[in-house]
Amino acid sequence: MSSWAAAAEVLRAQRIETPSWAYGNSGTRFKVFAQRGIPRDPYEKIDDAAKVHELTGVAPSIALHIPWDRVEDFGALGRYAADRGIELGAINPNVFQEDDYRLGSLCNPDPGVRRKAVDHLLECVEIGRVTGSGVLSVWMADGTNYAGQDNIRARQDRLHEGLREAYDRMPENMRLLLEYKFFEPHFYTMDVPDWGTSFAQCLRLGERAQVLVDTGHHAPGTNIEFIVAVLLREGRLGGFHFNSRNYADDDLIVGAADPFQLFRIMHELVSAGGLDPAANVAFMLDQCHNLEPKVPAMIRSVLNVQEATAKALLVDAGALARAQAEGDVLGANAVVMDAFNTDVRPRLAELREDMGLDPDPIAAYHRSGYQERIEAERTGGAAMGWGA
Amino acid sequence: MSSWAAAAEVLRAQRIETPSWAYGNSGTRFKVFAQRGIPRDPYEKIDDAAKVHELTGVAPSIALHIPWDRVEDFGALGRYAADRGIELGAINPNVFQEDDYRLGSLCNPDPGVRRKAVDHLLECVEIGRVTGSGVLSVWMADGTNYAGQDNIRARQDRLHEGLREAYDRMPENMRLLLEYKFFEPHFYTMDVPDWGTSFAQCLRLGERAQVLVDTGHHAPGTNIEFIVAVLLREGRLGGFHFNSRNYADDDLIVGAADPFQLFRIMHELVSAGGLDPAANVAFMLDQCHNLEPKVPAMIRSVLNVQEATAKALLVDAGALARAQAEGDVLGANAVVMDAFNTDVRPRLAELREDMGLDPDPIAAYHRSGYQERIEAERTGGAAMGWGA
Amino acid sequence: MSSWAAAAEVLRAQRIETPSWAYGNSGTRFKVFAQRGIPRDPYEKIDDAAKVHELTGVAPSIALHIPWDRVEDFGALGRYAADRGIELGAINPNVFQEDDYRLGSLCNPDPGVRRKAVDHLLECVEIGRVTGSGVLSVWMADGTNYAGQDNIRARQDRLHEGLREAYDRMPENMRLLLEYKFFEPHFYTMDVPDWGTSFAQCLRLGERAQVLVDTGHHAPGTNIEFIVAVLLREGRLGGFHFNSRNYADDDLIVGAADPFQLFRIMHELVSAGGLDPAANVAFMLDQCHNLEPKVPAMIRSVLNVQEATAKALLVDAGALARAQAEGDVLGANAVVMDAFNTDVRPRLAELREDMGLDPDPIAAYHRSGYQERIEAERTGGAAMGWGA
Amino acid sequence: MSSWAAAAEVLRAQRIETPSWAYGNSGTRFKVFAQRGIPRDPYEKIDDAAKVHELTGVAPSIALHIPWDRVEDFGALGRYAADRGIELGAINPNVFQEDDYRLGSLCNPDPGVRRKAVDHLLECVEIGRVTGSGVLSVWMADGTNYAGQDNIRARQDRLHEGLREAYDRMPENMRLLLEYKFFEPHFYTMDVPDWGTSFAQCLRLGERAQVLVDTGHHAPGTNIEFIVAVLLREGRLGGFHFNSRNYADDDLIVGAADPFQLFRIMHELVSAGGLDPAANVAFMLDQCHNLEPKVPAMIRSVLNVQEATAKALLVDAGALARAQAEGDVLGANAVVMDAFNTDVRPRLAELREDMGLDPDPIAAYHRSGYQERIEAERTGGAAMGWGA
Repeated sequence: MSSWAAAAEVLRAQRIETPSWAYGNSGTRFKVFAQRGIPRDPYEKIDDAAKVHELTGVAPSIALHIPWDRVEDFGALGRYAADRGIELGAINPNVFQEDDYRLGSLCNPDPGVRRKAVDHLLECVEIGRVTGSGVLSVWMADGTNYAGQDNIRARQDRLHEGLREAYDRMPENMRLLLEYKFFEPHFYTMDVPDWGTSFAQCLRLGERAQVLVDTGHHAPGTNIEFIVAVLLREGRLGGFHFNSRNYADDDLIVGAADPFQLFRIMHELVSAGGLDPAANVAFMLDQCHNLEPKVPAMIRSVLNVQEATAKALLVDAGALARAQAEGDVLGANAVVMDAFNTDVRPRLAELREDMGLDPDPIAAYHRSGYQERIEAERTGGAAMGWGA
Repeated sequence: MSSWAAAAEVLRAQRIETPSWAYGNSGTRFKVFAQRGIPRDPYEKIDDAAKVHELTGVAPSIALHIPWDRVEDFGALGRYAADRGIELGAINPNVFQEDDYRLGSLCNPDPGVRRKAVDHLLECVEIGRVTGSGVLSVWMADGTNYAGQDNIRARQDRLHEGLREAYDRMPENMRLLLEYKFFEPHFYTMDVPDWGTSFAQCLRLGERAQVLVDTGHHAPGTNIEFIVAVLLREGRLGGFHFNSRNYADDDLIVGAADPFQLFRIMHELVSAGGLDPAANVAFMLDQCHNLEPKVPAMIRSVLNVQEATAKALLVDAGALARAQAEGDVLGANAVVMDAFNTDVRPRLAELREDMGLDPDPIAAYHRSGYQERIEAERTGGAAMGWGA
Repeated sequence: MSSWAAAAEVLRAQRIETPSWAYGNSGTRFKVFAQRGIPRDPYEKIDDAAKVHELTGVAPSIALHIPWDRVEDFGALGRYAADRGIELGAINPNVFQEDDYRLGSLCNPDPGVRRKAVDHLLECVEIGRVTGSGVLSVWMADGTNYAGQDNIRARQDRLHEGLREAYDRMPENMRLLLEYKFFEPHFYTMDVPDWGTSFAQCLRLGERAQVLVDTGHHAPGTNIEFIVAVLLREGRLGGFHFNSRNYADDDLIVGAADPFQLFRIMHELVSAGGLDPAANVAFMLDQCHNLEPKVPAMIRSVLNVQEATAKALLVDAGALARAQAEGDVLGANAVVMDAFNTDVRPRLAELREDMGLDPDPIAAYHRSGYQERIEAERTGGAAMGWGA
Repeated sequence: MSSWAAAAEVLRAQRIETPSWAYGNSGTRFKVFAQRGIPRDPYEKIDDAAKVHELTGVAPSIALHIPWDRVEDFGALGRYAADRGIELGAINPNVFQEDDYRLGSLCNPDPGVRRKAVDHLLECVEIGRVTGSGVLSVWMADGTNYAGQDNIRARQDRLHEGLREAYDRMPENMRLLLEYKFFEPHFYTMDVPDWGTSFAQCLRLGERAQVLVDTGHHAPGTNIEFIVAVLLREGRLGGFHFNSRNYADDDLIVGAADPFQLFRIMHELVSAGGLDPAANVAFMLDQCHNLEPKVPAMIRSVLNVQEATAKALLVDAGALARAQAEGDVLGANAVVMDAFNTDVRPRLAELREDMGLDPDPIAAYHRSGYQERIEAERTGGAAMGWGA
């Protein structure tokens, strides 16, 4: 697809989900730097997410993290969101922040701890049923720090048992996306360290179990777009957690560390129909704005995904296919680079105006007074963060 | 298994296959340093492999690489080997050293090149039928150097088609082992870069398609024993190409860069029954002795695998399971480290004497005069190497 | 040096400093798992460090971290330690855990923050004067997360200015050791990411500024012993922070991830006289026992350094030099591997008995009732950790 | 500098040196794919380099590699180049392609081999004197493959001795640039693995010894622009070997793997005056076009450097400094990203027209018939490559 009109149509329909936790304080093991204006409850997170959607037009849902976003009445939370123009999105269970989980959750050698972890997953399934979420997004911190600490295969068996129970409880319209991570918080093994392990576990669960690709969760040098292409071919690409990294799981703004990589990932999606709503690939952000203010950083992130998508949509598919068929290495690469080197910002500004939006969402945010307002208003109570 | 008697029985039965190509000259892209006494034909490679087996007692077969080891009469080659006490082992096709393969072999955009590559695989199946080889060991250099150079998914489709044809031609007793490699000789994508891709391709082929783990073919930091454990659990661990690395695919002597890693891999095998002949895991070496003399380096390599296996067999499985069940992190690790820290060399020397071998194979080699003899005798003709 | 008698003498004189912070709670950004029996003040940390020294005989000092270990009267703290048989060691300033340091400490664009950071360093110099510490151990978390965030060169200039002030204030017997770290907590640049940057900064400061090598602070694949050898040759190896890693800065027990690497580092030290007290290389541990109990983990760590040192002392230097001179690659490597493969534990047990210690410090710890006692006694108050 | 007029002036004056060896055949250890139209002698390489300069206007010199480019009369070679509009550039000695160099060149344990290597360096100094080259570009393949193989410090001493002799022989206008490389062709140590080692060696030689940064010679995740900034601050950045990599030393087209990284490097240069001719930073390419045709690949490479430079020149330095001073993380990053996201191709096309060049050098090359001509004419003789 190389005409801008067709591209614009896809771009209008794009949906990028922002994560509730990225509106709260975050940091590294060394320090969480407190910011002003941080939400003090899930409702205020929804306010922030709604602001991001209001200005970008393509971020119409917010992912929830349980228990951080646990409320008495999820139905009410959903209505609150709907009133502000967004939906509740993926449900993210948390099975890593209690002392019980020191040696793992679903993979823990202690059956009592495993039971507790599975029960939490089942609770999240029920929350998702209430909120109408189509995605149960499972990441476990499970792993070991020392050789011999636990039995690798036994842990895979326990993992399957736990996921099986959650999978079987899910309503028909829900998918289980199993996220993998190369390392952290464990340093000898993670129990789902790579896409292959997630894929193998998903195959045993059923068709509604799919792999979730967090762009920050790979070994140095890994070609992520290759994994995306293979998973699309296997029908097992469930979605993304977008962010960017230079070293480990840096959780920087998506596209900040390597904008060309983000473009290449989008190119694989475009060329395999992965942007088609029928492909049902969930585009979610998962970031930590440790230094920079949260809301404009999230706007920047959404725009980065949008710009990369726009460039990918500009790739001249016909010319590319011809050059590939002819074995024209430089020619094929040039087709792709031509799209990447194009400055899509003016066209996206026009598209926004067509959509009734400000052409420059960042400037609009700064003009809006929103930041000043939340800094002034959100002063009592405890700022939300990873631990709350 | 922690008693030495039982361990010794396993060690007697161990079979480590040496690769014909490691007896020839090898090097880097910068330089192949010529050595003296290098074989000039496959028969002389067999002589060297037989010497390694004669001295170690656990290297009773030699892998062949076609066309480097192509001879008129493979039956005669097999009898030559048998006369010297060893067997012909895995057949390794070569689909990367002709100008036709510049853009790939099975994945090449040109159907004519793909046909040529598949035909070579079929030839190798037939050679294996003649030699009685149980393993068709497929590594392809296929990949791309630049984004957009070719269509990633289309290349996976072509790969499947080619492998399908070879798989279907294999006799019942033959397995297809599909090797993966993170990078090199291509630097944007390899077409089988990771175990997940190999696994997915094998699943589509059938039960006799299995993953081959080359210990040098992973991203930095990859936990290889985890992959070994998962593949054993899935019944898809076909075998190993052993070597060691610090950086890329260094092809150093196995155990030289990280002896603890080799031990941990062996520990996973031991604890999952992977050393049981019924598990049918092929233990093969794949190394380049660029600087050091070939035959003693190969003896050293075989001993390194043997020593790591012996240590893994010394792990007190009962104590380990107890510590793991109790969540005793330091205790479980201590069980494993106790085995690793044990000096198994005296016990292995005794085992060799029991087997009628010299207790010190390296010293025996130096005393044997073999090196002097091959250096003196192998003077005319062209030394074999990767290109011949 | 290859005779055990000479080795034993060196081993008796070895001094491995344990860090106060490793006796407190620690964790990852995801979770700090609380343990029982954790010290509630610096005095109890000293109790734990003294226990480690009592059982190992080679850990006679404890590093302090300011402000975590700030007390009213450091003289009294020193006497408390002396009464328990240990000394106060390196002083470690903390310029990363206040909100002011969000954009850096010595490198911060704000002169007021830089002043505050320098003042803290000066305070630490004064504390060191009181405690008689010979080492000011400087690690800064300074860096940036995004391209353009700050001016790389200007930050180097500011760094020099701040260090200059601290260096000039130090008493004659104090050294400034400048630690480098590849990444974390910043992900685009660290201001001292590699040994070269630390070395360049030290050269400008003066002879008592030296490089501190934390074994966990390198890029994947880095040959640390090479750096050690080069710094020894330049006279700029100030000391170590020992720990081990598979991925990032995992801070696992030293020698746990790669015992062969630890041995190789010790081999470089031995062969360059780096264990000679005159070389003045500080051997310090810096670890996080996130999952395992602190005191036995620290004993294990000390033993791991001791075992690696013992093996390094067993390398037959004469045989090694001969093989190297002859270009005998396999022979030279074999000399080194022979030492590594030796089980030094029985000899070290004897050495401990000679020193009046229990031959098995871990077993002695478990028999001592110390763990039960601290778990019972340390119940009121707040457990110490990174944040307190 | 943010006005285009000023930027254009810098771009007109830019000089990017192409390497003679990149016009010859190259490959990996697995295969050198032969191409058609490859030069058969250094004169034909000069023809190709001149074509690149003719079309780009910014590649007015060619680096020589000795002995690959050794001719009887370097004066004549220089005049041949001058007649075609280019100059002879850096002289690159080769001390890695003879069997004598198996265990190293300047660092070899054998004094005879060291003598041979130093003599070759001295020969190259003399060649440089004849050709008027200002740069002696030293890369050694020296290193070891196994722990203990040789003495790391002794090798540093030998290295210094050899370089000292070459340095002292250089004419006043010549600089010695010492290239570092993380690994390959050796896999345990390289003797100059990082910028710190090169820097330390250069400091001992004198002011005309400087570090050469090959962009492909770093550990995964290394921030190269940081090194560039630090070396500029120390006055020791001698120049670049540009290429790009995803994994090891891939030697792909510069900017192909990560165009944003190339831009960031250029940004550091621009902001520190590194493009000023007085800074005397040599911009040289060092690539292997294994799959793609050589001459258009080289044109593409030159354009990539030029485009990255143009973008770097567009960074609004004033706005950037203000945002940095204010600690405006997102704002400062936005200034840099704005320049990167700008499509500079139209402006560069105009600049070329101003310079009397075709606005599209790639298209001009294809129209020129040059490729067809060299393929037709260069048919007899041996194609040049790394080995000849």
